[in-house]
Order: sequence, then structure tokens, then C-alpha cells
Amino acid sequence: MAPGIAAEKKTEDEQSSKDNLIHLSNPHLEKMKDDILYHFALGTGTHDFPALFGDVKFVCVGGSPSRMKAFITYIAEELGLGSVGADYPNICAGTDRYAMYKVGPVLSVSHGMGIPSIAIMLHELIKLLYHSKCSNVTIIRIGTSGGIGLEPGSVVITSQSVDATFKPQFEQVILGKTVIRSTNLDDQLAKELMQCSKEINEFNTVIGNTMCTLDFYEGQARLDGAICLYAEEEKLQYLKAAYDAGVRNIEMESSVFAAICNLSGVRAAVVCVTLLNRLEGDQISSSHDVLVEYQQRPQKLVGHFIKKCLGKV
Amino acid sequence: MAPGIAAEKKTEDEQSSKDNLIHLSNPHLEKMKDDILYHFALGTGTHDFPALFGDVKFVCVGGSPSRMKAFITYIAEELGLGSVGADYPNICAGTDRYAMYKVGPVLSVSHGMGIPSIAIMLHELIKLLYHSKCSNVTIIRIGTSGGIGLEPGSVVITSQSVDATFKPQFEQVILGKTVIRSTNLDDQLAKELMQCSKEINEFNTVIGNTMCTLDFYEGQARLDGAICLYAEEEKLQYLKAAYDAGVRNIEMESSVFAAICNLSGVRAAVVCVTLLNRLEGDQISSSHDVLVEYQQRPQKLVGHFIKKCLGKV
Repeated sequence: MAPGIAAEKKTEDEQSSKDNLIHLSNPHLEKMKDDILYHFALGTGTHDFPALFGDVKFVCVGGSPSRMKAFITYIAEELGLGSVGADYPNICAGTDRYAMYKVGPVLSVSHGMGIPSIAIMLHELIKLLYHSKCSNVTIIRIGTSGGIGLEPGSVVITSQSVDATFKPQFEQVILGKTVIRSTNLDDQLAKELMQCSKEINEFNTVIGNTMCTLDFYEGQARLDGAICLYAEEEKLQYLKAAYDAGVRNIEMESSVFAAICNLSGVRAAVVCVTLLNRLEGDQISSSHDVLVEYQQRPQKLVGHFIKKCLGKV
Repeated sequence: MAPGIAAEKKTEDEQSSKDNLIHLSNPHLEKMKDDILYHFALGTGTHDFPALFGDVKFVCVGGSPSRMKAFITYIAEELGLGSVGADYPNICAGTDRYAMYKVGPVLSVSHGMGIPSIAIMLHELIKLLYHSKCSNVTIIRIGTSGGIGLEPGSVVITSQSVDATFKPQFEQVILGKTVIRSTNLDDQLAKELMQCSKEINEFNTVIGNTMCTLDFYEGQARLDGAICLYAEEEKLQYLKAAYDAGVRNIEMESSVFAAICNLSGVRAAVVCVTLLNRLEGDQISSSHDVLVEYQQRPQKLVGHFIKKCLGKV
């Protein structure tokens, strides 16, 4: 290699590192002419990704499509980018698998429920950001969860995402073999988000471990599913052991979210509100209005964070 | 126990067995005053389940809400229960987690993507059918899948749902421990469905094993995800081993579907169309119109089956 090229390469690498581009851990993609993101109904052959998404710096993801639409309306107003009564079109209107909305540097995407559903979305989201040549992207999951030992309505910023045996790991099955992946999240980002919660000072927020399960009923020790073959005492013993292991809430997406963001070199956080205290029950029986207000809390917290990052606070 | 009561009990049991009521494997539910089916936005305290759902005999479930709405419109016309241009309201309009439609004895419910998402739906569906005192219910998943060694558009009626190591089992994590459950499906029902396909004679249908994975990209040996650390040769080796184990298609819900239906004493089947032949590629690149027509095939097959059961063929 000529010295000039080496120097140029080095400069490019430095620039890449400084710009924090998306890291794609897949050498096969370079050989593909077009890339169809099937579950988004988008493709590089049919859509100009850099023009559509090149300016994205914040991606907020959550289970429910209507909640992610509510978030884009909220953040547009907060950032002064929206007009009153504006309607934000669903970018993934060609499918009903996921919904996607954008305003300025913020993308809001739904992911459905459970690890497999969010994993499909994240594979296609990471490729979307890569094809769009995005840099310095932060991805935050804003979701709902069951709390352990917290007042309902408390918000948990995830320190570590742990599995059903309280280990900070995600088991990915590849070609029939299980591979263990790290579920670390960005410590600094968690602290910045905690600081935002202190600044808005409207609800209780803690940093704690989040248990990520493959099931809502038996997998989370509920007594109210169609199937339950254990006693209430065993349930409470399990949830208390989780609490002792630092678990403050339970949801169904954080482990693969952390694993995929890690492998893609993206700064990531999980901010979930707790809808109930699982030490006191299983059914989500709060009124609709109370639940709606709870679900706005992660949106407010992350909205404040984005405003602060953009110098608008 | 007095002889009269014992005799009465026996008669009730015989009647239950004859009527094939839903079996709830959860003694805790009897102690609950109300039961809130949170992800359906329905509850026994707010809705008259026997009046709303007591006549249900067929439940068809599939990933996409719009596809399940299309199915209810189709089956209403086929059964002569619909009026031209009729709109079927979403029974779960209070939430966007799932969508549910009903016409006559047929219920159509969406389940999202992946084992956790369909498991939440099935727990609440089984409880809904139980609270409604339904009897002799058949549940059929009508879905999409990737085929192995089949022409795209072929329909697979699942013989056994197998995991990523080709074993006919589902691993359920309960209180942090893994429990193995059977994924058997009703052989007789599969044969009846195969006969229906022969009768309509419009597309290729086979009975074969279905591999159920927790992931769409690495979990199904795709080369086009955001992460892929294996070679094309290893991918093909894995898919060919699956074919040799009798696997004819891959999807993401059948194992827990079979396991929960088994434990609830419900006759169940899985009928999925294959959108591509995975031995020839990974991307779903057929035109929108072709894919729409493929997705109608399981609906046609199951529609014919329901008509036949109701003596309308």
C-alpha cells in the first residue's frame, strides 16, 4: 500500500471513530446490490436512505405503535419543530408490522412485544442507519414494565439487563448453537438520563437492573395466566430473589436490545415506567387515565434529555 | 360425598368430555373476582364473555392485524354471514397490542411476531374462551414462513413443530428454571386440512415439520441481518440438515402455540404459506401483489375447512 493511501485510510478511520458511525457486523451485506428491509416495507433500491434518514441522531423505540406516534407529536412540540395539530405520517405505511415516525433528528419506531419482535426491528433499524450514513446515534427504549418493590409509576433506567436467572447476558441461537452475548448498556448515558429526571423532578426514578423474560405470565411468575402450576409462595420467593439481585423491573425486550446495540457500536439506554408493583399483585388494574399518564413519564424524561443534547433547555 | 352427588358429578364430567370444554391449568384463577385480559383491553368485570363469545367454534390467529381483518371479511362472505361492504369492528379497539374480529362462530385474532408475543395472546385467548364457556373449539394459526426446498407459495400444514436443533419441544422458563413441553399438534386435523387443500386444488400443499425460531435473521441462518458471523456454506449446511430432519418451513410462533393448545385441551393446527425458498435466498423480494396472493392461500384452505365443518360446502 502506498504511503499516501495509508495516510488517507488513517484519516478516514480517525474521522469514522470521531463520528461514531454505525458498525455492521456482517461482511455479506457489501455484496448485495439492494437491501430490502421487509418488515419496514423500505428498501435501498426504492428509497433514498441518506436523504430520508441521514440527519437522525436519536432513535426512540417502544412496543406500541400509537405510543410511538404520541411520542413524535410530543417531541416535535418540545423541540419547536411541530405545528399545532400536525399529523406525522407513518414511514412504514406499507406494512403493519412496525410503525415509524420522524421529526428533525428524532426517529420514533414501534417494536411490538418480546425479544423476537424487537430483534427483527433492530436488525432492520441498524441497517437503515448504516445505509443512511448516520453518525453519533443514541437509541433509547421507552417502555412499560412490571416493578419490583417500587411504587407504581416509578421509572427505571436500566443499569444491566439480566435474564430469568439474574445473569447479565443474552442467549442468541445461531445455526442451532447457543451463543452468549453481553447486555451492557452505556453507564454514562444512564447517569445523564438520571440527571434529567432530577431536573424535571416530577416522578420517582431509579437506576436498577431490569429482568428481561421470554414470557409475560409463567416467565414473570404471574398467577393469572391460562397456565400456572406453582404456588403464590414460590412466586414471591422468586420475585424477592430478583429484588435481592438488584432487579427493579421486568420487561421483555431489553436484553436483545442491549446485545444488538453493543455489537453495532451504538450508545443505548432503556427507560421504562412500572405499571404495578409485582410484590403486591399481577393484574394491571389501574384506570386507563392513570396508565396513560404513567406511560408519558419515559417520554417526558427522554424528551428532556434530547432537548438538553440539542441545547434547547 | 352422597351417591347422588357423585352420580351428578360423573354426568357433568361425561358432558364436559363430550363437549370438550377449555381446560385451564391454573387453580389460582378460581379465586379471582374479576379477570382483566390487559392486552385485549377486555375484562370479566366489564364485558359479558358468554354473550360476546359463547358461540365461538373456530379461532384463526395470524401475525398481522390487517391480514386477520381481511380474513374475517373473507370468511363472512364464504359463510354467507356478511353483507357487501360490511366493516367488522375491532373487538380490542381499546388497545393496539392485538386486533380481534368475530363473525358467527369464527374469531380472528392477530398475535404479532415471535413466541413471546403469541404467548401473551394465547394466555388471554384461552382465558377468554374459558370465561365464555366455549366448547369444541378448534384453533388454527394461518401465517407466513420461509420454505425449505419448496416452490414459493407452497403451503405447509405442520406435522411437528421443532426447535432450532430439530427437536419437537418447547422450552418454557418458569421461575428461572427451564421446563420442556410437547409441541404435538392434532394429526387428524392436519389430515382433514390436507384433504381440504386437495379439494380446492389451487396450490401446492404438504404436511411437514415446521422449525420455530426465536429470531428471523441469525436464528434462521440468514445472511442479510445487521449481524452475521457465519459463511454462506455454513448457512446452507444448516438448512439442509433441517430439510433432512423433515423441516419444510421456518416461522416464529408454532412451538409455543402447540404447547399452550396442548395444555388447554384444544384441537390445533398450523397452516403457513412459504414466501420464498430459503435454499435459494434470504430476502423476500417477490412483488407486493404476489405476496398478497400467497398470503390468501392459508385463508382459502382454512376457509374451506370451516365451511365443510359447518356443512356449507
